[in-house]
Amino acid sequence: MRDFTFFNPTRIEFGKHKESHIGQYLKSSASTADLILYGSERVKKNGLFDRVAASLQEQGITFADVGGVISNPLISRVRDAVKIAKEKGLQAVVAVGGGSVLDSAKAVAAGAKYDSDVWDFFVGKAVVEEVLPVFSIMTLAATGSEMNMAGVVTNDETRQKYPIVSPLLFPKVSVINPELMASVPRDYLAYSAVDIFSHCLDLYFTAGYLPEFSAELIESILKTVMRTTDALLKNSDDYDARGEFAWAATMALNGNTFAGVEGNTYDTHMIEHAMSALYNVPHGAGLAVVLPAWMKDIKNQMPERFERFADKVFGVSGGDASIAKMTEWFSAIGAPVTFAQAGLAADAVDPIAENAFGNAKLWQMDTLYPQQRIADILKLAVK
Amino acid sequence: MRDFTFFNPTRIEFGKHKESHIGQYLKSSASTADLILYGSERVKKNGLFDRVAASLQEQGITFADVGGVISNPLISRVRDAVKIAKEKGLQAVVAVGGGSVLDSAKAVAAGAKYDSDVWDFFVGKAVVEEVLPVFSIMTLAATGSEMNMAGVVTNDETRQKYPIVSPLLFPKVSVINPELMASVPRDYLAYSAVDIFSHCLDLYFTAGYLPEFSAELIESILKTVMRTTDALLKNSDDYDARGEFAWAATMALNGNTFAGVEGNTYDTHMIEHAMSALYNVPHGAGLAVVLPAWMKDIKNQMPERFERFADKVFGVSGGDASIAKMTEWFSAIGAPVTFAQAGLAADAVDPIAENAFGNAKLWQMDTLYPQQRIADILKLAVK
Repeated sequence: MRDFTFFNPTRIEFGKHKESHIGQYLKSSASTADLILYGSERVKKNGLFDRVAASLQEQGITFADVGGVISNPLISRVRDAVKIAKEKGLQAVVAVGGGSVLDSAKAVAAGAKYDSDVWDFFVGKAVVEEVLPVFSIMTLAATGSEMNMAGVVTNDETRQKYPIVSPLLFPKVSVINPELMASVPRDYLAYSAVDIFSHCLDLYFTAGYLPEFSAELIESILKTVMRTTDALLKNSDDYDARGEFAWAATMALNGNTFAGVEGNTYDTHMIEHAMSALYNVPHGAGLAVVLPAWMKDIKNQMPERFERFADKVFGVSGGDASIAKMTEWFSAIGAPVTFAQAGLAADAVDPIAENAFGNAKLWQMDTLYPQQRIADILKLAVK
Repeated sequence: MRDFTFFNPTRIEFGKHKESHIGQYLKSSASTADLILYGSERVKKNGLFDRVAASLQEQGITFADVGGVISNPLISRVRDAVKIAKEKGLQAVVAVGGGSVLDSAKAVAAGAKYDSDVWDFFVGKAVVEEVLPVFSIMTLAATGSEMNMAGVVTNDETRQKYPIVSPLLFPKVSVINPELMASVPRDYLAYSAVDIFSHCLDLYFTAGYLPEFSAELIESILKTVMRTTDALLKNSDDYDARGEFAWAATMALNGNTFAGVEGNTYDTHMIEHAMSALYNVPHGAGLAVVLPAWMKDIKNQMPERFERFADKVFGVSGGDASIAKMTEWFSAIGAPVTFAQAGLAADAVDPIAENAFGNAKLWQMDTLYPQQRIADILKLAVK
C-alpha cells in the first residue's frame, strides 16, 4: 500500500424525487440568489427545470438561468455564465444535466470568484483559491463529476480540451435520481458505459502498484456496468439497473479505487480529449475507439495484469482474448470501435496525435508518449 | 436501489510517518490548545506520544493529556476528560490509540460542549448539537471509527454499552499508518478481524434489499481480511498486508457498503455489547462467539444469500458449510467461538440476554428479538 490522502466531502442524495429538495440543500449553504446551468431545452420541456425552480422559490431563493451547454462543453459558454454570475452577484451554481453541464458549472464557480479569464485555471496560469458552492442534479451518469474535484472543458478557439482541478470544486450536494436518467438515448448509455470502463482501466493498467482490494473494486465496477447496461438496453425503465449503473459511475472516480495505488495516469483520456477537441466526437465514443487500441499497445508490458483482467472480468484467458471480448461488447452495445465507425477519416491520425501530444506535455507525460507513439496507437484503431 | 444519503467528510491520511504531521492537520482547524487522549502507557514508552507532542509543539499548539482508556471504554473516564477539556478550554481532541480511544474521544468532544452529563447523548436524552473537532491516530484497525460518526462507550454504573451517533462526530482527519499497528498482539488482531466480519455480515444478512455491488464489496472486504490476517499471523511486519487490513476495516463501516441497501440492522452488535458490558469480554472476542450462533439462527430465513456467501467467500455450498468454515477460521486465528473459550459460564446466558434485550428496546428491535430468542441464540454458543 502506497501513501495516500482520501478526502471527499460531497454529499450524495440518491433516490426518487430528491431533486425536489434542492432548495433545502442550497439553503444549508445560505445562498439567496443562484445560477441554474443546464444543457438542452429538454429539461425545460420535461418539467425538471420547473421542479428545481419551484424548490428554490419555496426557500425564497431567486435565480438566473443559462442553458445551451453542449457535450464537450465550451469555455465560451462558461465565460457567458461567469459574466452573468458576476453581474448579478450570484452565490451558488446548480448544474442540471450530465457531466458536461456539471464540469461547466465547476468552471463557472471558479471563474465567478476570479478577476481574470477563467481559462487561466485550465492552463496552469492560476490556482483556484475561492469558488461559489456547486450543486448538481444529474440526468446522465458517466463522468463521476458529481463526486469529484475535476471538470473538463474545451477551448473553442485553441481546440484544447483541458481539465480544471481543485479540492474546492467538490460539489456540496449531488442529486442522483435514476428516474431522471431513464430517457438517456441508447447511444449515450453506451458512451457512458465506455467512459466508466476507461476511468477504471486507465488506473488498472497504468498503476505501478495496484492493491488487491482496488483491483477487486474495479473489477466489480466493470461487471456492474456490463450487467446493468445489458439490462437497460433490454428495458430502459429498469430502476435498479439504472441506479446501480449510476452508482458504479460515481464509484469509478470518487477516490475509492485510488486508495493505496501507485503511479496511475490517464492515458486514454489524454489521447481521447484530442479527438473531442478537434472533431467533436462524444467523449465516450472516442474512448471506445482509443481504449482497445491503447490496450493492444501496452498488453505485453503487464501480461499478468491482463491475464487477471481477462479471467475476472470476461472469464477468458490472455490479453488478446480480453481485448477482443471487450471490443465485441462495446460493439454490441452500440459504441464505435474504429475511426470509421466514429466518423473519423484515416488522415485524422496525425492532427489528433499532435493535439494529444499537447495534452501529454501539459500532463508531464510527453517522455512516455512521444507524438509518434500516440500516432501508432491511433493507427491500431484505423480499420 | 433504495434511496440513500452518502456523506463522509473525514480526511484519511494513510501511510508512513503521517502521525508526525498531526500538528499541521490540527492547525487547519485553528486550534491552539488540545486534548490528547490515549489508552495504555505503551504509546508513551514507544515514542509515539512524543512524536505527536513534538508535532503539536512545532505548530505552537499546547495540550493536556489523559491516558488510561481501556478496551470496552468507560463513561467514567470520558467524564474525567470532559472535565479537563472544559476547565482548560481545550479546542480539539486527538485520539492516539484504537477504536476504544477514538470512541471515547468522540464522547469527550460532544461532552465538552454540553452543559449536562455526556451520558445523556447515549440514552437519547439529548442530541449532539456542538462538538470539539476530533482527530485520530490509529494504532489498531477494527472498529471503522476513524471514518464514521459513531462511538460506543460502556456505563460502568448501569452496565450499559451504548452508542453515541452524530454527523458532527466524523473525525476531521484520521491518520492510518500501518507501521503503528505492527505491534498489535495476535489475539487482538484476531478480534479485529472478527469485528470487521461482523460489521459486514450484520449488513449482509439483515438487509431486505442488498444491491449486487454492495454484496461484492462486502465479499471483497471479507476476503481481504482473511488473506491479510493469515499473512500477518505468519509475518507481523508485512506492511502491505497490515495496510490492506486497515483499509478493509475502514471500508467496512464508512458508508460505502450501505449505499442503496434497505433495512439492515446491527444484530450481532446488539447482542455482543451485552457480553462486553457485563463480563468485559473484548468486543471482537464476544462477536466471534455470537456471530456463528446468530447465523445458525437465521440461516433458513435467507437460504439464497447464505448460498451466495458460502460460494463467494469460502468456496463451499450451503449455509451450514459456510458457518462451519467461518467458525473454523475464527478458531484457527485464535478467536474464541464458544462461551467456555471466551471465559463465560453457561449461566451467563440469561443475564446477557436480559442486558441485550435492553439494547434491543433502545434500538427498536425488541419485537424482532424478544429476550427468549436472544437467549436461544446464545445457547447455540454454549458448548
